[in-house]
Amino acid sequence: MLNTLIVGASGYAGVELATYLNRHPHMNITALAVSAQSPDAGKLLSDLHPQLKGIVDLPLQPLSDAAEWADKVDVVFLATAHEVSHDLAPEFLKAGCVVFDLSGAFRVNDGAFYNQYYGFTHQHGDWLDKAVYGLAEWQHEKIKEAQLVAVPGCYPTASQLALKPLVEAGLLNQDQWPVINATSGVSGAGRKASVTTSFCEVSLQPYGIFNHRHHPEIVAHLGTPVIFTPHLGNFPRGILATVTCRLKPGVSEQDVAEAFHNAYHDKPLVRLYKKGVPALKGVVGLPFCDIGFAVQGEHLIVVAAEDNLLKGASSQAVQCLNIRFGFPETLSLI
Amino acid sequence: MLNTLIVGASGYAGVELATYLNRHPHMNITALAVSAQSPDAGKLLSDLHPQLKGIVDLPLQPLSDAAEWADKVDVVFLATAHEVSHDLAPEFLKAGCVVFDLSGAFRVNDGAFYNQYYGFTHQHGDWLDKAVYGLAEWQHEKIKEAQLVAVPGCYPTASQLALKPLVEAGLLNQDQWPVINATSGVSGAGRKASVTTSFCEVSLQPYGIFNHRHHPEIVAHLGTPVIFTPHLGNFPRGILATVTCRLKPGVSEQDVAEAFHNAYHDKPLVRLYKKGVPALKGVVGLPFCDIGFAVQGEHLIVVAAEDNLLKGASSQAVQCLNIRFGFPETLSLI
Amino acid sequence: MLNTLIVGASGYAGVELATYLNRHPHMNITALAVSAQSPDAGKLLSDLHPQLKGIVDLPLQPLSDAAEWADKVDVVFLATAHEVSHDLAPEFLKAGCVVFDLSGAFRVNDGAFYNQYYGFTHQHGDWLDKAVYGLAEWQHEKIKEAQLVAVPGCYPTASQLALKPLVEAGLLNQDQWPVINATSGVSGAGRKASVTTSFCEVSLQPYGIFNHRHHPEIVAHLGTPVIFTPHLGNFPRGILATVTCRLKPGVSEQDVAEAFHNAYHDKPLVRLYKKGVPALKGVVGLPFCDIGFAVQGEHLIVVAAEDNLLKGASSQAVQCLNIRFGFPETLSLI
Amino acid sequence: MLNTLIVGASGYAGVELATYLNRHPHMNITALAVSAQSPDAGKLLSDLHPQLKGIVDLPLQPLSDAAEWADKVDVVFLATAHEVSHDLAPEFLKAGCVVFDLSGAFRVNDGAFYNQYYGFTHQHGDWLDKAVYGLAEWQHEKIKEAQLVAVPGCYPTASQLALKPLVEAGLLNQDQWPVINATSGVSGAGRKASVTTSFCEVSLQPYGIFNHRHHPEIVAHLGTPVIFTPHLGNFPRGILATVTCRLKPGVSEQDVAEAFHNAYHDKPLVRLYKKGVPALKGVVGLPFCDIGFAVQGEHLIVVAAEDNLLKGASSQAVQCLNIRFGFPETLSLI
Repeated sequence: MLNTLIVGASGYAGVELATYLNRHPHMNITALAVSAQSPDAGKLLSDLHPQLKGIVDLPLQPLSDAAEWADKVDVVFLATAHEVSHDLAPEFLKAGCVVFDLSGAFRVNDGAFYNQYYGFTHQHGDWLDKAVYGLAEWQHEKIKEAQLVAVPGCYPTASQLALKPLVEAGLLNQDQWPVINATSGVSGAGRKASVTTSFCEVSLQPYGIFNHRHHPEIVAHLGTPVIFTPHLGNFPRGILATVTCRLKPGVSEQDVAEAFHNAYHDKPLVRLYKKGVPALKGVVGLPFCDIGFAVQGEHLIVVAAEDNLLKGASSQAVQCLNIRFGFPETLSLI
Repeated sequence: MLNTLIVGASGYAGVELATYLNRHPHMNITALAVSAQSPDAGKLLSDLHPQLKGIVDLPLQPLSDAAEWADKVDVVFLATAHEVSHDLAPEFLKAGCVVFDLSGAFRVNDGAFYNQYYGFTHQHGDWLDKAVYGLAEWQHEKIKEAQLVAVPGCYPTASQLALKPLVEAGLLNQDQWPVINATSGVSGAGRKASVTTSFCEVSLQPYGIFNHRHHPEIVAHLGTPVIFTPHLGNFPRGILATVTCRLKPGVSEQDVAEAFHNAYHDKPLVRLYKKGVPALKGVVGLPFCDIGFAVQGEHLIVVAAEDNLLKGASSQAVQCLNIRFGFPETLSLI
Repeated sequence: MLNTLIVGASGYAGVELATYLNRHPHMNITALAVSAQSPDAGKLLSDLHPQLKGIVDLPLQPLSDAAEWADKVDVVFLATAHEVSHDLAPEFLKAGCVVFDLSGAFRVNDGAFYNQYYGFTHQHGDWLDKAVYGLAEWQHEKIKEAQLVAVPGCYPTASQLALKPLVEAGLLNQDQWPVINATSGVSGAGRKASVTTSFCEVSLQPYGIFNHRHHPEIVAHLGTPVIFTPHLGNFPRGILATVTCRLKPGVSEQDVAEAFHNAYHDKPLVRLYKKGVPALKGVVGLPFCDIGFAVQGEHLIVVAAEDNLLKGASSQAVQCLNIRFGFPETLSLI
Repeated sequence: MLNTLIVGASGYAGVELATYLNRHPHMNITALAVSAQSPDAGKLLSDLHPQLKGIVDLPLQPLSDAAEWADKVDVVFLATAHEVSHDLAPEFLKAGCVVFDLSGAFRVNDGAFYNQYYGFTHQHGDWLDKAVYGLAEWQHEKIKEAQLVAVPGCYPTASQLALKPLVEAGLLNQDQWPVINATSGVSGAGRKASVTTSFCEVSLQPYGIFNHRHHPEIVAHLGTPVIFTPHLGNFPRGILATVTCRLKPGVSEQDVAEAFHNAYHDKPLVRLYKKGVPALKGVVGLPFCDIGFAVQGEHLIVVAAEDNLLKGASSQAVQCLNIRFGFPETLSLI
């Protein structure tokens, strides 16, 4: 049994982590923590999230001293704000913990990126160098050796799972950037009160056009430019990405199918559609990324769907945990 | 043309007031105001509420000195917090304005009520005495003479329109209190950011059981005790109230139908159902209260539906305006 | 391992049964079946319900001859229309199968009830006599011996779990009937296409006032009259029941709390709220019924929430299975 | 006063037509009609759509003989299935009526198009030649002379309003097709019962990839190829189109702004955003198409939002009526 601490357990991703880890046969949740200033400190997780009543009734402990906890646990999950993860992760890492960070603090090995997109100067270049990007289907070998796994963002997970097989197989026309239109449920904005995410204000709309922080994350790890337009959708959970690409002349539908088959036929948490494309309802509450596509002439449309809180955050973090410690990849997930 | 000021114009009720008054042939919107501290001060109403772009593009002016405005307008609508209305209304009234207050500040002529349910000590007993409760279908004559109209709460409007014909006709068994179960859309909680009303948190649930401030308002104006249980529903607008009553022995379905007919056959904004009961969709976006009922033995169920922001707030305020100034009752409303 | 057949597997309750039984360690799904005329016959369950892709990919076999299957399975779940269950159950029972019927065909031991509320004449009075009503928390001993379990309706489950402790403890005033206002998600109407349940038509509304077939089911098993008003809510899943009761003079809040504690402190799938009342979001997707209450004077309001497809149908059926065969009561459910 | 007949009045677009024409000062609704076989024949419109109770209580008359009505009315609105419009329109046209057809029956002057995309052989090439495509902002002069106006589809309206100023101004790179990703509310599928549009089945998903009938309609009238991917969204009304384009080298943001300004500065029902892009909530229930855009380098993203039933159908039909008869363009619309 590995002892684990979940920091930021009161948020939407934290709740999902608690649920998975509570039923994981090799994990013991030593404690749930929130920042010392959080108004949720001292409450039970199940007071905030009544679905967990009788399942995970642990208290949310205020985290004032990371070192104190670092000695008691083997594994730390950080479902915290980017700056908080940036500060906390090294403390746990120095104590020897394995850290799965769900924030953006260690995803891109480029200090300037943090200044521009996250508004802080990165202080831990050494850990940036060592961090492994946790796109589970593509980083299996590196995750097995990692001490710090930077779990990808929700949009980047869907976008890269849709595009990476095509990029790797060299099927895309270089002159025309893939167009990623993605729509996310409101939970992607977190649990903090905001007029933007209040019930009466939400409606379908694009945001962050040409300047969303997930754009450079996608480009950095995909290795090719894209146009990425995120949208807020009027549903609580899930992401659907519609990706429009130009194929190289001569590339056939069969070539595309093979590229996806080769990439994912042995990956239990990517489900390929042989015909048709996925709908959001197929993945909500589940740890899968579903992918389908259609070809007409040189035009290719790939559709990827996932639960933004699961494959886009918490279940991918647990998937990385399973890979890291040699457990079956889907353990506790399905 | 009457000049009018809408205070609290940035909230959901304020927007509806602006829409109605903008198209009202006898009204001129002199200005829209918000509290001087509001972050919305200085913005256009249509920046906050894009549906009004090109329709009502007026700025939201910070209200620092009521007296300054009082001289410029004939009519004031207060879509403000209870304490704010309590403080502002007398300033406009002293200057001779006719005031329609959508808050709870002048609805119940009982000082203790404000301490208990609104958390402030009422300072304007004289205006409490003079205020007319604006339940339009029942207060027509008084509204015609009023300088201060206290527009009823959203739940009290639906509840009283459902019950008052029965109470007035003496049809209800006194030993058994009517049970009002009502469900309101999220806009009833206002536009302020709150975790409770955030998109991912809302689901059907009762609240304020036995202690909602609309309970004593209903009882005070209905003149009979009731059990009132409000619920938050997962929709933006509307209230549906299901009222279960015990009839006096011998009262027939026909008696009930007559009571409703007598009360409302000449009221253009109450729609009686001859068969069946209303659904919420019939009233959303419209200024009506729809009422239907069913009888079995001594048991009576009345269902009333309205848009909480319209008949439960803004359209009723404009209906009162129309009555007060002798305009057709539905002018600009349908 | 017990072999099981799920009939009516393509509907919403059937899908949930398939999900639970697929992960149940002592159950083997021998086959999924639908009626021979169903347009879904021959498809994969996961074609209709993509969330099950890769999890339950079994085909939906057309059921033409029950006897053929009866010999191959130990346990049958009927998630079928009432008339279909009425006809099928005896065939499986005669062959020795244990049958869990989710329809209304065997819930009330009164032939006239079926003519009036279900529109058919019941032909199997012998099985009506032997059927055990599967309200799991209250019928534990009988379920252990049952060959035919009539799993309760969704509204009756919530209503009875809310009221039965009070009735059994004799706390309710006999002169005033409890008022049950309950709101159900749209899935309660099944998966068949209908204008009534189409996306653009659904809004909060009461229906079946004074004549819903779940009313006599509640009364028959509770043993006391009630007023029951069901509502359609604009959400896919869940039931919230708000029950307003009159207590006998002298009954205290503590008496009520004790009645609930005594009834449910050792029942793993009823969660009592010590303070506050449940919201729908706490139970959606979960096999619990959550119960809370409030008392003021002689007035008592009990709120019960459940997932209509789970505790109101499929999870209760599996709970009954677990009880019947001596498995842990929550096995595969949480 | 012009006498008018609305055929197909029971559907979602028909209801909106009835609402607009009922309040139009120059129009008299002579009758509402549905096909003779419709189960709605004989009912009141307000029985099906309770929001119209007391507003439009006319009966839905079965249309068996178009000629009978043709003599009594000046103007006919066809909110009917494509084949029905195809058959009916000529009958009314021959009698001298002015016809506004909301179906696809006369939108594209290419017989083969109807065989391929609508499944019938077009019999009325003469009327196809005379029909005027009712994209109101671009066809003003032709609509003024038209006897048959083919009101554009919902997706084509948003798509063309977004792209036509750019195409006309020659700003787009010809080598790269614009990518139109559009999401429509469920009402776009009509009011007929279907599992696909039932409440529990709807979730965000693409459909009709590479073969939606609105694709050739867009291409035919825009005069340039596009990639068009429609999506079903989980909301009742509205369309949001996100259009990604490549600009010609050297084209600036200012050039784009000027193209939009030139096209729409004097068009009352297109609202241009000076900064930001529209959200769906700004247009639901309103007759506008809202348009905003963003440029980065050679990449341009245009966002257009409209109510699919209004600017995408009924309000555009009334706008065409107003243009045709010389009424103010927005009469009865805002």
